[in-house]
Amino acid sequence: MRRIITVGREFGSGGREIGRRIAEELQIAYYDQEIITEIAKRTALSEAYIRQIEEKRPVVSFPIHIGHSFYLSPDPTFHPDLSIYTKQHDLLHELARKSDCVIVGRCADFILRDQKPIRIFFYADMPSKIKRCIDRRPVDENLSEAQMKKRIMEIDRSRAQYYSFFTEQKWGAKENFDLLANTSGTDIKKMSESLCSYIRAYY
Amino acid sequence: MRRIITVGREFGSGGREIGRRIAEELQIAYYDQEIITEIAKRTALSEAYIRQIEEKRPVVSFPIHIGHSFYLSPDPTFHPDLSIYTKQHDLLHELARKSDCVIVGRCADFILRDQKPIRIFFYADMPSKIKRCIDRRPVDENLSEAQMKKRIMEIDRSRAQYYSFFTEQKWGAKENFDLLANTSGTDIKKMSESLCSYIRAYY
Repeated sequence: MRRIITVGREFGSGGREIGRRIAEELQIAYYDQEIITEIAKRTALSEAYIRQIEEKRPVVSFPIHIGHSFYLSPDPTFHPDLSIYTKQHDLLHELARKSDCVIVGRCADFILRDQKPIRIFFYADMPSKIKRCIDRRPVDENLSEAQMKKRIMEIDRSRAQYYSFFTEQKWGAKENFDLLANTSGTDIKKMSESLCSYIRAYY
Repeated sequence: MRRIITVGREFGSGGREIGRRIAEELQIAYYDQEIITEIAKRTALSEAYIRQIEEKRPVVSFPIHIGHSFYLSPDPTFHPDLSIYTKQHDLLHELARKSDCVIVGRCADFILRDQKPIRIFFYADMPSKIKRCIDRRPVDENLSEAQMKKRIMEIDRSRAQYYSFFTEQKWGAKENFDLLANTSGTDIKKMSESLCSYIRAYY
């Protein structure tokens, strides 16, 4: 049975880091930015452009994040384009066929549902998410906590819109996941180890 | 660090069985009906009476479950009594001090929050819960699926009322738990093993 772990996460919950750690620990493929790169190669669209579309619901403009920090996207003229989603859909299926993997974001839990992935969602309370953003921010970022909170909420709102636009499901709702893990105040490394143990016992 | 696992669960999700299996596997104490018995001994109230109060929100009357099946409680004259909750509160603290343990229900996640338990909530989709109830029903129970569904919803509604009455929190909401596990279509024994692995790695 192919081990496919999909990761949904609130911004600042550490879910992406846990996903990467799980992939490393289990020695399986990890997809995140890689997917974007792959799509970009195939479509000859610029990676930055794809990244914008991918994390956004068409027609709305909002900040997206890159890496562990915030990033205010420029205000591009935006043309809703379902073909990006379709390409991503096909690519995810191809990747999941190829090998065991962890896939972060991209509605992978929904797109790959027939492959019976373990669908994990990470979340945390706001103070924990702000703390994580502060701990990991680049030296040139100096948002106040109030500004950070606003951005976190904007990003999560956009993820929720993106997710529900393509899946017609509620983002982060427990019925769409197998496991939801609260990272508030937890040690991310330790939680990754616990989840690896869970996954190993599961398969 | 004392290992305390609290289990919340939707009726029919198998959460209680998983709780028991975890306790057995980890060889730690398991509390469920035992708590009721203990309280009953101390207060000299009848166990059946306590059981009724415990699972109900004061002033409403509804069916409760015993074991793995449904049970229609008689319609007692009901006097809301916070002293039962207070006794239960003290008892849970005493039990948690005494040894590592799994505690199912009884708002233990809330009552013992300062002891930093792993707070797990189990849930499942309705078809899985109905299937589980059918698979485990006693020979003399012959509810239709529609009747079962109605009972499951009634019992869960009463659990939600009981929980929110005493905790002022929403029952089953992810912010009140560390881990939420979907048991739909899963092998309960296997899930118990996976969670044991998780818990072992956690502590």
